[in-house]
Amino acid sequence: MKALISVALASFVLLFPLSTFADEPINTDAINTLWIVIAGAMVFLMQPGFALLESGMARAKNAVNVMMKNYMDLCVGTLLFWLLGYGLMFGTNPSGWLGTDSFAVSGGGGMDYTVLFFQMMFAATAATIVSGAMAERTNYFGYLVGVIGITAIIYPIFGSWAWNDDGWLKQLGFIDFAGSTVVHSVGAWCALAGIILLGPRLGRFGVNGQSHAIPGHNLSYVSIGGFLLWFGWFGFNGGSTLLVGTEIGPIILNTHVAGAAGAVGAPFASAMMRQPALMTNSVNGSIAGLVSITAGCASMDIPYAILTGFIGGIVCVFGFILLEKLKFDDVVGAVSVHGFAGAWGTLAAGLFLSGDMFNPDVILVQLLGICVAFLWVFAAAISMYGLIIKTVGLRVSLQHEQRGLDITEHGEVGYPEFNRDAAYLNEYVKDLQPIR
Amino acid sequence: MKALISVALASFVLLFPLSTFADEPINTDAINTLWIVIAGAMVFLMQPGFALLESGMARAKNAVNVMMKNYMDLCVGTLLFWLLGYGLMFGTNPSGWLGTDSFAVSGGGGMDYTVLFFQMMFAATAATIVSGAMAERTNYFGYLVGVIGITAIIYPIFGSWAWNDDGWLKQLGFIDFAGSTVVHSVGAWCALAGIILLGPRLGRFGVNGQSHAIPGHNLSYVSIGGFLLWFGWFGFNGGSTLLVGTEIGPIILNTHVAGAAGAVGAPFASAMMRQPALMTNSVNGSIAGLVSITAGCASMDIPYAILTGFIGGIVCVFGFILLEKLKFDDVVGAVSVHGFAGAWGTLAAGLFLSGDMFNPDVILVQLLGICVAFLWVFAAAISMYGLIIKTVGLRVSLQHEQRGLDITEHGEVGYPEFNRDAAYLNEYVKDLQPIR
Amino acid sequence: MKALISVALASFVLLFPLSTFADEPINTDAINTLWIVIAGAMVFLMQPGFALLESGMARAKNAVNVMMKNYMDLCVGTLLFWLLGYGLMFGTNPSGWLGTDSFAVSGGGGMDYTVLFFQMMFAATAATIVSGAMAERTNYFGYLVGVIGITAIIYPIFGSWAWNDDGWLKQLGFIDFAGSTVVHSVGAWCALAGIILLGPRLGRFGVNGQSHAIPGHNLSYVSIGGFLLWFGWFGFNGGSTLLVGTEIGPIILNTHVAGAAGAVGAPFASAMMRQPALMTNSVNGSIAGLVSITAGCASMDIPYAILTGFIGGIVCVFGFILLEKLKFDDVVGAVSVHGFAGAWGTLAAGLFLSGDMFNPDVILVQLLGICVAFLWVFAAAISMYGLIIKTVGLRVSLQHEQRGLDITEHGEVGYPEFNRDAAYLNEYVKDLQPIR
Repeated sequence: MKALISVALASFVLLFPLSTFADEPINTDAINTLWIVIAGAMVFLMQPGFALLESGMARAKNAVNVMMKNYMDLCVGTLLFWLLGYGLMFGTNPSGWLGTDSFAVSGGGGMDYTVLFFQMMFAATAATIVSGAMAERTNYFGYLVGVIGITAIIYPIFGSWAWNDDGWLKQLGFIDFAGSTVVHSVGAWCALAGIILLGPRLGRFGVNGQSHAIPGHNLSYVSIGGFLLWFGWFGFNGGSTLLVGTEIGPIILNTHVAGAAGAVGAPFASAMMRQPALMTNSVNGSIAGLVSITAGCASMDIPYAILTGFIGGIVCVFGFILLEKLKFDDVVGAVSVHGFAGAWGTLAAGLFLSGDMFNPDVILVQLLGICVAFLWVFAAAISMYGLIIKTVGLRVSLQHEQRGLDITEHGEVGYPEFNRDAAYLNEYVKDLQPIR
Repeated sequence: MKALISVALASFVLLFPLSTFADEPINTDAINTLWIVIAGAMVFLMQPGFALLESGMARAKNAVNVMMKNYMDLCVGTLLFWLLGYGLMFGTNPSGWLGTDSFAVSGGGGMDYTVLFFQMMFAATAATIVSGAMAERTNYFGYLVGVIGITAIIYPIFGSWAWNDDGWLKQLGFIDFAGSTVVHSVGAWCALAGIILLGPRLGRFGVNGQSHAIPGHNLSYVSIGGFLLWFGWFGFNGGSTLLVGTEIGPIILNTHVAGAAGAVGAPFASAMMRQPALMTNSVNGSIAGLVSITAGCASMDIPYAILTGFIGGIVCVFGFILLEKLKFDDVVGAVSVHGFAGAWGTLAAGLFLSGDMFNPDVILVQLLGICVAFLWVFAAAISMYGLIIKTVGLRVSLQHEQRGLDITEHGEVGYPEFNRDAAYLNEYVKDLQPIR
Repeated sequence: MKALISVALASFVLLFPLSTFADEPINTDAINTLWIVIAGAMVFLMQPGFALLESGMARAKNAVNVMMKNYMDLCVGTLLFWLLGYGLMFGTNPSGWLGTDSFAVSGGGGMDYTVLFFQMMFAATAATIVSGAMAERTNYFGYLVGVIGITAIIYPIFGSWAWNDDGWLKQLGFIDFAGSTVVHSVGAWCALAGIILLGPRLGRFGVNGQSHAIPGHNLSYVSIGGFLLWFGWFGFNGGSTLLVGTEIGPIILNTHVAGAAGAVGAPFASAMMRQPALMTNSVNGSIAGLVSITAGCASMDIPYAILTGFIGGIVCVFGFILLEKLKFDDVVGAVSVHGFAGAWGTLAAGLFLSGDMFNPDVILVQLLGICVAFLWVFAAAISMYGLIIKTVGLRVSLQHEQRGLDITEHGEVGYPEFNRDAAYLNEYVKDLQPIR
């Protein structure tokens, strides 16, 4: 039997060769694997970051639902991206418009698997951006169907243009190092389509058009969520080198200072309008700064990274005001933070390209990429959510929205001992028909 | 004086030689040290993960107590594992049944220290699994005495059979790469012994045998706890290579997809029984998926990892139902998640061994290991908790359980401004005699 | 256009040369960069750790304000340390008393940037220690001005004495490997100056001098904050090697066992005084243990690390009692945990220097460093906060303190659905004039 096991292990080693032993120099692939794995794990922590940020900005009656959507979009997105998305995005791409192999990969060397793991986290990030914008009125099942569409089709197809080595946008010289557009704007334009089709939450806009802010139930969660997102960003941007080199240093430093500058920029913009220093604003400003630097973090000098982040923070404030004027109800400001600041950051990567600043040709390609991303993603997402509305449904019923999605969709209450009204409703939970 | 310091530092350098300088190639031991240290730190974050998951599933009146048990079992377990456990588990093992040296190590090279640090985290994980199952009625001091028994004796003795190079189970070819059985099932069988001896919480089962679910006080904590556990698992499984190589890639990828599949499997099982999509169920499903893949993550191909995780999620749902039928009160479902899914995962590591699937000889050794683990750990833990009951006591008084362990054991209230009843009780705290 | 981009990228590569390619051995600088970046990111997580610990120990009406101070001191401190602090601390230091270049660095190799990133996190840590001690009565703007003073002047000037290669204290042989004094005591002595000038919170001390404990609003946050701080410490101490070597192993192990021993030491001290096993006490004990080992973690053997941490836990208990007797109101015990335990740890690094224990010459230099740190920092901070009081103000008005700083300083409420009184006040928020 032990002989058999040896044979089995030996044949396994052929699949996953052990590259290091204590008495020989370390292999570069092994070191790169190490970094990408660690960076991917750091990006993973952006998921609880989003969960906390979004849940904290929602009401207590929807806390479980928001958390669940963040938890399950990671899970569903992971499996779908393995099955379809990765192949569409990074498979052999003869036309420049679509990958055609590497679906459901199940064998091969360690480094491919590592990159797949890392890219799974990116796909899940794009998907989860949507959950916050559409929070508090989207049904759980319809949301998850949307996640399938994003991680299996919408996100990887644009990715195959911009990040596949043979992608047509990449061939034009489009600069988006870690995904200001490829990940963040893509997620945000899906979210924009979603909130337009969903309509605003009950009571968000008054009959005479006035806007009512609906306060989140736990601002401490918002702040901790912001910190976790920021931490994850070090892996997001730093890991996008896909190898270990000293350039990780300036990438991470640019990432960090841009986040700090964004957190200063957003309340600065508010202060100009004589508004108080809101936490939600400051945290969103830092995220907008991080989104902004994501495209150019590897090709920008520190002062420009600070400037990019600072303007990103300002962009997210005015973007939110614009959306509110249009009566679009984005619960957490995701469209502004990831979409508008992502577009700005992609532009900034062209404007402030170290050694070739303000080159009109570069800027034109950046603008092209920004516009193409919007057109493809918004059109695809409108179609997808339209289809979901016609089939499984996207918006919960009036009664369910009023009672909260925790009880009506999951039969659970987030804080049964504190939120007396919710606890009271809990007794009625068996009378309610869960959506699925 | 400076000369003396130089001598001192020089003699210290003899103990801990500096292995790297900028002008020579990096040493493999140094790189491996780096990874094990980082992986160990990631495993460390499983402790707040457990703390949040368990506390969130308990009531607010026991929140401090649950958190404290998680905090202090790490601390006590760390010191005891250094003093005794590590030697018993990894010391020279002439008989194959027990390590006999390396107790309270205090000198030697960097790598040994690094492995000790990493293994401390594993011992603390095994110990902390118990805290959730036995929550809300176990006295603090009795619990900590149990932690001493687990980290100093029960866990390392089984570990010396399965993970010590001369261990008899390892010699037979038992496959448990990162501890589905060695860590997770061991913790769970201790927990099973504990909850049988403790009995259920007041009101958990009615006089006519009906079961009353007791809702946790904060489901947001449960979700964030699940995320942190998942993050820690990348270090848990990835770090178990104890070296840097490209095989970390497939290990981490298998870990991740199994977690995702478990989170889908558990609500799938519930949906089959026409139950709603509970968050607690989904999070526990993902943990069960992660537990399941822990044994075979280094020797399984991706589709089998997904299958293993998916079945792990289903196993944990039915395991919980079985325990509830037996009137065993496991507050967080730890026995099912870590015990049953751990046993399944250990079996799956044999069934789906890459290159030698469904080999009956391999499977037989796996079953032997699973059974031996149960027999040793359950018997030892029953004896230990029995002894604790006879001496320092294990269950708090009726009055203390009703008032909550936060006030009665610690003289603190978790949320004095929200939980009005608890805050009220706070005024009486000086009249209550804390257990210690 | 593509040619232009190539030129641009080529010129960028001259700034940030890519040091690794798959077909050549990995470069030591690249590996060291990797570790410092990861370690710096781990230290970053100390910020949410502090935020949770401090917010949890404060009242709900100040939760947003505490979180915001922690969020924004990181952001402001990051930018100021880049602009001024780093140059003062690590720039060319001809006199041994002050760095004179490297301000607002914007070009150069990867490793310098990496060290700057890592040191930014240390500066932010020193600054954020203050926020907890001065919580619940310090105005937001005055606090941020203080952060500027600490990160741009007070912290880097002492750092230039102790950590700059030409610093006079370093030349004397002062041992403070990762900053028991340089970071933690410096932050704590600033905090001490602040709380003396601020005075205690309303109701903290009675008219007859009796002391009233003010319970924190969320002890679960305190525990999770402690875990995150602990995790960050692995980066804090381990990363202070600034290179990858096997010595990281014993450093991390010493760090971990000292934290565990501190968590045992503090409740041990309380138990001696027949007090209950408080969570706040145990968590603070572990932090005190970690602070204590920070100076000597690279030059101490494990049993002494345990002893150092254990005594650190005891020191923090008695330090808190002393401060309370003096009517100093430190909301989270920061002065005791970071100041007194930091001083103890700096002394312990001399006492237990491996290979040269109890050398009076070494001990004398350690005592000199401890005293000099206190004299410089306390005097500078008293002057700075005195100046802030005369200009922008440091303490909020009586009315604002009563209503809570969340509403009065930020116009937001942390938990509007739970904290009924705060929610009620929310309606009046527009009548209140925010401080800025």
